[in-house]
Amino acid sequence: MSETLLDFMFHPRSIAVVGASNNIESHGHNHMNFQLTYGFKGEVYPINPRQTEILGRKAYPSLADVPGDIDHVIIAVGIQNVPEILSQAAGKGVRSMHIYSGRASETGRPEAIALDQEILKRAKQYGIRILGPNALGFFCPGSGIAFGYDFPEQPGHVGAMMQSGANSTDLCHLAKLRGVKFSKVISYGNALDINEVDLFEYFIDDPDTELLLCYIEGLRCTPDKYLELLRRATARKPVIVCHGGRTRAGTRFSAGHNASRSDMGKDIWAGPVQETGASLIRTIDDMVDVTVAFSQLPPIKGFKLGTGGGGGGNCALYSDEWEENGFTLPPLPQEIRQEFKRRGSEAWDWMNNPADYSIVAPGDAYTVPAALAEMAKHPDYDFIVGYVGEDFPFKVETLEKEIMTNAEEYIKVAKQSQKPFFAIVRDRSLGIREFDSLRHKVYARVRTRFLEEGIAFFPSVGQAAKAIKEYIGYCNKQK
Amino acid sequence: MSETLLDFMFHPRSIAVVGASNNIESHGHNHMNFQLTYGFKGEVYPINPRQTEILGRKAYPSLADVPGDIDHVIIAVGIQNVPEILSQAAGKGVRSMHIYSGRASETGRPEAIALDQEILKRAKQYGIRILGPNALGFFCPGSGIAFGYDFPEQPGHVGAMMQSGANSTDLCHLAKLRGVKFSKVISYGNALDINEVDLFEYFIDDPDTELLLCYIEGLRCTPDKYLELLRRATARKPVIVCHGGRTRAGTRFSAGHNASRSDMGKDIWAGPVQETGASLIRTIDDMVDVTVAFSQLPPIKGFKLGTGGGGGGNCALYSDEWEENGFTLPPLPQEIRQEFKRRGSEAWDWMNNPADYSIVAPGDAYTVPAALAEMAKHPDYDFIVGYVGEDFPFKVETLEKEIMTNAEEYIKVAKQSQKPFFAIVRDRSLGIREFDSLRHKVYARVRTRFLEEGIAFFPSVGQAAKAIKEYIGYCNKQK
Repeated sequence: MSETLLDFMFHPRSIAVVGASNNIESHGHNHMNFQLTYGFKGEVYPINPRQTEILGRKAYPSLADVPGDIDHVIIAVGIQNVPEILSQAAGKGVRSMHIYSGRASETGRPEAIALDQEILKRAKQYGIRILGPNALGFFCPGSGIAFGYDFPEQPGHVGAMMQSGANSTDLCHLAKLRGVKFSKVISYGNALDINEVDLFEYFIDDPDTELLLCYIEGLRCTPDKYLELLRRATARKPVIVCHGGRTRAGTRFSAGHNASRSDMGKDIWAGPVQETGASLIRTIDDMVDVTVAFSQLPPIKGFKLGTGGGGGGNCALYSDEWEENGFTLPPLPQEIRQEFKRRGSEAWDWMNNPADYSIVAPGDAYTVPAALAEMAKHPDYDFIVGYVGEDFPFKVETLEKEIMTNAEEYIKVAKQSQKPFFAIVRDRSLGIREFDSLRHKVYARVRTRFLEEGIAFFPSVGQAAKAIKEYIGYCNKQK
Repeated sequence: MSETLLDFMFHPRSIAVVGASNNIESHGHNHMNFQLTYGFKGEVYPINPRQTEILGRKAYPSLADVPGDIDHVIIAVGIQNVPEILSQAAGKGVRSMHIYSGRASETGRPEAIALDQEILKRAKQYGIRILGPNALGFFCPGSGIAFGYDFPEQPGHVGAMMQSGANSTDLCHLAKLRGVKFSKVISYGNALDINEVDLFEYFIDDPDTELLLCYIEGLRCTPDKYLELLRRATARKPVIVCHGGRTRAGTRFSAGHNASRSDMGKDIWAGPVQETGASLIRTIDDMVDVTVAFSQLPPIKGFKLGTGGGGGGNCALYSDEWEENGFTLPPLPQEIRQEFKRRGSEAWDWMNNPADYSIVAPGDAYTVPAALAEMAKHPDYDFIVGYVGEDFPFKVETLEKEIMTNAEEYIKVAKQSQKPFFAIVRDRSLGIREFDSLRHKVYARVRTRFLEEGIAFFPSVGQAAKAIKEYIGYCNKQK
């Protein structure tokens, strides 16, 4: 397999961290620590003229003092030092440099803009690619390189190019809670050198990336070029785009955030981006939900769902929510009623789609998972959804058993189903007292079981509906 | 103060629970237990011919065996027994009866419908008001009467009339996590006798209820009567309405849920209900958020907000989300920049609205709470929002201190502010492992502190925007 562009940056043999430190509150400490934590196999050289050993590694006063060559450099010192560091790096065979340091062009200050230009000039002169400045760097679990704590350590097939460190971090943290695994997540900040063009070129060909997420505030290429890159990317893999700086306040903000003019090419977002086949979304929560749909579900053919779980009022409202979002809940077919009659169920003439948890009678053949299992076999339904949001009014003593039994039955339905299956497990605004409460832990336990079994879940019907609609749109275009 | 209609039901001197039991899995056990748990001051009589003592109280074989009179009866035995129980109740001075039992008209079965009619006939004959059947009952914290565990025990000023037990329970549980306190929450199920007309008549005059929430699937009165009741109610207090059964699947479902024809008067929901001055919402999550806005915030005059918190990408996206929802984020006025310049802040020329957490430099006068405090004094802003959703990429070791310090500063801003202040604290899909993680507990601790200090918070900007928009609409109508 041929090496794709930028592959050298994601798979360096050695890394130097300029500004590494034993002070745990310093960013240099963290940028050093992450590489050790995530199991980077090559050498990591701390660079700090005032310390001799950092995190168990010999520290060097400058890049020039490191014995042998260095592939990749991370800068966590003031940006004014970068031109000099670049000159040193040129002598050490450095191929790529991640400038974490900010206070660059995004400040809008003339001296900062001039400094950026000097950095770019030297980098080009020395043949060193620059990621940033004002960027968190990249996360490549396969190489053991990361820019934050508590990221999903197993490599996967979701790639992300993100023009924001906060959103990159949120993505990695929130996605981990939902079982998403990444090939690479790249925070590229001010995009002084490596920008959306390089990153698309990389991800289009990257065999490890099967789904591509993009957060972008300001284009560095022309709108036409951007659309061409999107078309090439969507021809190879699904692409999800979130554009930040869509409004007056957002545009104003993103200038000071990463020196973006997010209103550049502003007409492309409403129509042309979607015409390329990309999905356009609006928040990082949506990005996580769409990623779960695209990366954890088999193809969904249409908008007809069989669902159940929760009490009657839950069922009524989520039926409305699904149908108001363009889905339909076909009525329960006579064959299924007859099947439950045959099994002696008292509820056979009354059960429904959605299947109401509150009408389940002890010992009756009708249960929510049993109803879902039958709908999963029937041609009237395209996919099946099990709802777990119910706070039963009674029986807090037996709540755990009841909810876990139901969840395990959902898992069986999902495994035996010929249809896509996912669950709804509602998020809650927990206070610290609730962290000791069985009642709240049980939903956490359900999520953990679903993750273990590879069952996709969403925090609400509204969030699921948005994500599944995008996914069905994509599946239909693939036909 | 004159007693409002139905007051007798909410303040009984004694309650009998027919079907009370020592079996903790039985509903009768729970309906008995709740009255003891929530501190009901009157007598509670368990009725069960097969047990002599239940939860420390002497059990009686039938209502007729109870010494003296009974005010209120809760039925947790098969509905076929109700006509006979009504006859016994008539001899004991019973004034109201809550029929928890279901399998009534909502099954659509002719014999169940006939039974309901027999129940209604006898109730009218004996002058006993019926709540239900197929209803969880009512929660009146002032009387120590409840229908579920873990409800907010302190009485408050939010009243709710809910035609669904699941939604009533969700409301009580979710609202508790947000500091909402109730006057009464009434689950009225099939509305065989007590229906929306009685409940409006009650709540319109109830001095304890300052905000009225309504969940309704099917009207029992005419649409015109319903609109008239709404107009009378909104003239006295804000009213929030959620109609379940808006779609084809929802309508079909609600027939089997509480014998409703939720398509009756279906044309009133789109326009006429809102013209009465009521707020129309679509989910219980929205109901909780709107309740927080209406019951915990001072009047908000307009759509201009000053906000901050979270990293740059968070700021960019939530700026967009606010403005796309009809709000505006006025740019930071020169006076505020000059004030920070005067204080020696390095960020004075760069800071913004929203105030970016990620550009805060150690020791600088610019901090997010400091910026919010200045915006709170400035006439350009109608209200102030502090965002707490940031997952800092670095320094997990100092995360707790950093986030708690920030939250305490927000509390100070809120207390000193002349403008309404609320916070955004994002919900997360926690697995069981995360319950042991400091990183997730710290957000729970922030919520708990906000609750202690009476600071309203919302789980996302999207949810806050929906709720605040309703609230501003209401405030403007009050002018």
